[in-house]
Amino acid sequence: MLPATVHAQLAALLPREALLTATEDTRPYECDGLTLFRETPAAVVLPDTEQQVVAILKLCHAARVPVVARGAGTGLSGGAMPHRDGVVLSLAKFRRIVAIDPLARTAVVQPGVRNLAISEAAAAHGLYYAPDPSSQIACTIGGNVAENAGGVHCLKYGLTVHNVRRVRAVTIDGEIVEFGGDALDAPGYDLLALITGSEGLLAVITEITVKLTPTPQLAQVALAAFPTVESAGAAVGAVIAEGIIPGGLEMMDQAATRAVEQFVHADYPLDAAAILLVEADGTPEEVAAEMAEVRRVLAASGATEIRVSRDEAQRLLFWSGRKAAFPAAGRISPDYYCIDGTIPRKALPRVLRQIEAWSAEYGLRVANVFHAGDGNLHPLILFDANRPGEADKTIAFGDRILELCIEVGGTVTGEHGVGVEKLRGTCAQFGTAEIERFLGVKKAFDPHGLLNPGKAVPTLARCAEFGRMHVHRGELAHPELPRF
Amino acid sequence: MLPATVHAQLAALLPREALLTATEDTRPYECDGLTLFRETPAAVVLPDTEQQVVAILKLCHAARVPVVARGAGTGLSGGAMPHRDGVVLSLAKFRRIVAIDPLARTAVVQPGVRNLAISEAAAAHGLYYAPDPSSQIACTIGGNVAENAGGVHCLKYGLTVHNVRRVRAVTIDGEIVEFGGDALDAPGYDLLALITGSEGLLAVITEITVKLTPTPQLAQVALAAFPTVESAGAAVGAVIAEGIIPGGLEMMDQAATRAVEQFVHADYPLDAAAILLVEADGTPEEVAAEMAEVRRVLAASGATEIRVSRDEAQRLLFWSGRKAAFPAAGRISPDYYCIDGTIPRKALPRVLRQIEAWSAEYGLRVANVFHAGDGNLHPLILFDANRPGEADKTIAFGDRILELCIEVGGTVTGEHGVGVEKLRGTCAQFGTAEIERFLGVKKAFDPHGLLNPGKAVPTLARCAEFGRMHVHRGELAHPELPRF
Repeated sequence: MLPATVHAQLAALLPREALLTATEDTRPYECDGLTLFRETPAAVVLPDTEQQVVAILKLCHAARVPVVARGAGTGLSGGAMPHRDGVVLSLAKFRRIVAIDPLARTAVVQPGVRNLAISEAAAAHGLYYAPDPSSQIACTIGGNVAENAGGVHCLKYGLTVHNVRRVRAVTIDGEIVEFGGDALDAPGYDLLALITGSEGLLAVITEITVKLTPTPQLAQVALAAFPTVESAGAAVGAVIAEGIIPGGLEMMDQAATRAVEQFVHADYPLDAAAILLVEADGTPEEVAAEMAEVRRVLAASGATEIRVSRDEAQRLLFWSGRKAAFPAAGRISPDYYCIDGTIPRKALPRVLRQIEAWSAEYGLRVANVFHAGDGNLHPLILFDANRPGEADKTIAFGDRILELCIEVGGTVTGEHGVGVEKLRGTCAQFGTAEIERFLGVKKAFDPHGLLNPGKAVPTLARCAEFGRMHVHRGELAHPELPRF
Repeated sequence: MLPATVHAQLAALLPREALLTATEDTRPYECDGLTLFRETPAAVVLPDTEQQVVAILKLCHAARVPVVARGAGTGLSGGAMPHRDGVVLSLAKFRRIVAIDPLARTAVVQPGVRNLAISEAAAAHGLYYAPDPSSQIACTIGGNVAENAGGVHCLKYGLTVHNVRRVRAVTIDGEIVEFGGDALDAPGYDLLALITGSEGLLAVITEITVKLTPTPQLAQVALAAFPTVESAGAAVGAVIAEGIIPGGLEMMDQAATRAVEQFVHADYPLDAAAILLVEADGTPEEVAAEMAEVRRVLAASGATEIRVSRDEAQRLLFWSGRKAAFPAAGRISPDYYCIDGTIPRKALPRVLRQIEAWSAEYGLRVANVFHAGDGNLHPLILFDANRPGEADKTIAFGDRILELCIEVGGTVTGEHGVGVEKLRGTCAQFGTAEIERFLGVKKAFDPHGLLNPGKAVPTLARCAEFGRMHVHRGELAHPELPRF
C-alpha cells in the first residue's frame, strides 16, 4: 500500500490514466520475462515528461518509497519485478526518436523506443543499431541500457555498453545527470559504463544517444554440421584463433535443431550432433574473402557438411531456426528454463561435455542454443513443472552450470543481467572487497536504497546467508531462492 | 616530510634501495610529461610485489599519508605529479608479462610493462595490443589504463577502455579487488570501465588483462593534400560518412608539415594547407577495396594530390613525419604547448577556422597535428617563455580552444586525462549533480581522499572558485592556475 500522502501527491501530478493502483491494473506489471518471481506493486506510474519523472522521484525519495523503473518488461532475470510497497515507473510513454545524425552516426532516443525501431528509423541513412537481443521487436532501448543487453551481433559489434555514447538520467533525489557525450572520451570517471548495466539501481534513464553502424552491403551465413558437440565447440575456437571475427557465430545442438526443424523447417541437417551458423558481413569482397577462410577452418575442424547461403532468402531461412529456438523448446516440453552464463571460448568443449553428463545424471533433456563466438551459453533445460521435484532438479542443474561458468573463468551472466535471479551467483563471483565497492557506488547514487531494491547487487549479509558457495564447488547440496 | 613512524614502517617493509627520501633521489619524480607543475614528494617507494603494495597502502591509509601511483611518468596532464607530504608509489618494478593466451587473445601483464613490449611479446602469435599512444616505446600499460590512453589506431580499435578485459588493483585500505574477466560481460556494476581512466584516484593497479588484436596482413596509407584546412577537415567527415573506419585518420596543417619536413624528410607536399594520412589495414583484398573508396572520397572532397604508399618502407616514411611532429615543433620554437581536446567530427572545419583566427589575434603560431578521425585535437601553440607575457597569452589561447571544444559538444580531454591541468575544464563540462556523483564514487573507494589528491575530479568548492565559466563563454578574462 502506498502512503495516502504519496498517493495524493502522485494523483495531483499525473493525469488520471497515468497512475494505476487498482489490483486489476497493477497485476500486468507483476513480473517481467522471468515469470518465476512475481510481486504486485503498490502503484504504477506512466509519466510522459522528464519533469514528471523528476517530480515522481523527488516525492518517492522524500517519502522513502521504493521505485522500480520498467521498460517493455521483456527482461529475463526479474530486474523489473516490482516492490510490494513501491512504485513501478514505466517508461512506456518515452518513445520519441529525438534526432538522427548520419554524419556523427548517432541517434538520440527516449528510453521507451523499441530496439528495432531505431534501426528502422536509421535505415534511410544506411545505418542501423547493432546490438540485437532476440526480443528486439519488443524490448526497449532503456531496458537494453539498464541490462547491458547483447545479441547475435555482439561478437563483432559489441554489447550495449559499446554502442552507447551518452545517457541522461534522473537520480533518486530528482537531479538530472548526463554522462558521456559525442566525443570518444570524457573527463571525470567513466560513469557512462557504470550506468549501463546498472539494472535500474543508480538512476532512471530519460534519454540515450546510441552509436549507429553502417549497414553492411552484404551478409552471408555458413551452416556447418559437426559429428560431436565438442568438435563444434572446438571449431568456434579455431575460427576466432584464425583472426576472424564473424558478424555472428552461433551454435545449436541436436536437441535444439530437431526441436526447431519441426517448427520452422529451416532445412537443418538433423543427423548432426551440433551445427554452427557463421555470418560474414561487409563489402562483397570482404564477405567472399572471409567466407573462404571460414569454410577452410570449419572443414579443418571436422565439419561433415558446410552450406553457404546463396541469397538473402536462404540466409534468413538459416537464421529462422536459431531465432525460433525458444518457442520451439516450448513446443517439445511443457516447461523450459533458459540459463545465461558466459565462459572463455577455450572452455566450450569441456563445459558442453559436462552439461551432457549432467543431463544424463539429472534425467533432464537440454537443448543448447547459444552465442558461441562470445562464449555466452543458453542451455535450455526442458522439464515439466507438474512432475513433483522436477522444477527443483532443474534449478539445481542450472545452478551447477553457472558454478561451472565461474570455475572455468567465466561469469554468471551473459546478457540477461542479475536481477533477482542471480544474486547468489554474484556473491559467488566476487569477494567481500568487490561487493563493498559495489555497495559504496550504490550509496553514492542512492543512499537510502530506494531504486530497485533487492536486485543486482547483494548485500554482504545476503552473501553470508548464501554461504561461501564458491569454496564448495561441485558439492552444492540444494538450491534455495533467490538462486544464481 | 614523512611522519617518522611511517618512514620507519616503510624502511622495515622495503629493501633499502626501494625507499627514496633524500631530495636528490626524489627530485626526478617531481613531475611527469607536464613540466609546468612540479612538486617534490616526501618519499618515493618502489615495491616489487603486490603484498608490498598492500602493506604500503595500509600503513599510508592508517597514517593518512597521500599516495600518488606512477608509471613511466610520460603523462601530459600532471596526473603523476607528487604530493608534497605524500608518497610516490612507483610501479616501475612491476614489469612482468605474466601470460599470453593466443586463443582467448589476451595478455596478462603487470602495470610497469611498456605498451610496445606487449605487442612485441604477442607478435609471435600474430597478435598485437592495439592502442598506441605516441609515447608507446616508453609509457607503461598501468599508466595507459589509469589515463585511458588513446593513439593513432583508436579510431578503429578503440581507446584503452575498449581493450582492457580485467584489472586487479589494491584499494587505499589494502584490499585486493578485481573487476572484469575473460568473458565479455560480468554481473555487478561496470567498475572495470570506472577504474580505467580514473587517474589513480580509486585504486593502485597491480595486474591487467588486455585484449590482443590480430596483426593485419597488410597496411597501406594514403597521403592527401588539401588547399585549405577546412576542406581537409570536411574530407575527414566525408570519409567517415561513407562508412569507412580507417585504421588511422590523421591530419597535419602546413605549419606542422613544414616543421617536420626539415627534420625527417617525409616527402610531404609543403604547398598544401593541410594533409591527411588515411590508413587501411586488413587482408590485401580488404585494403584494396577500402583504398579505392578512400581515394574516391578524398578526390571528391577536393584533394589536390593523393599518394598511396607502395610498400612498407614508404608507409613508415609517411608516418614518420606525423610521429616526429612534437619534437619538430620543439625545433622551430623555443617552447610549445600541446592542447588536448575532442570535438564531434562535424565541428572540425569550424574549430579549425576559429583556431586560425585566434592565432592571428594572439600573434602566436599554431601547428595543428591531430587524430582527426576521432575528433581529437592537438594544436601545438608555439611560444617563447622568455618573452614577457607570452606564456600567459599561450595559456589564454589554449583555454579558449578548450572552451570551444565544450561549446561544440566535445570535451576538454581526448587522451591526456585531466590531472592537475584540466580541473577547471572539468568544472565547466559538468554540472553540480554530475560532480557530486563523481565525488560520491571517490568516497566509496577512498573516504579520506588519500589517493592522488587534488587531481582529475575537482571539489565543488574548487568549481565555485573557478566561477561558472561555462556561462561566460568567449569572455574569459584571464586564466589562473590550475587551468583547463
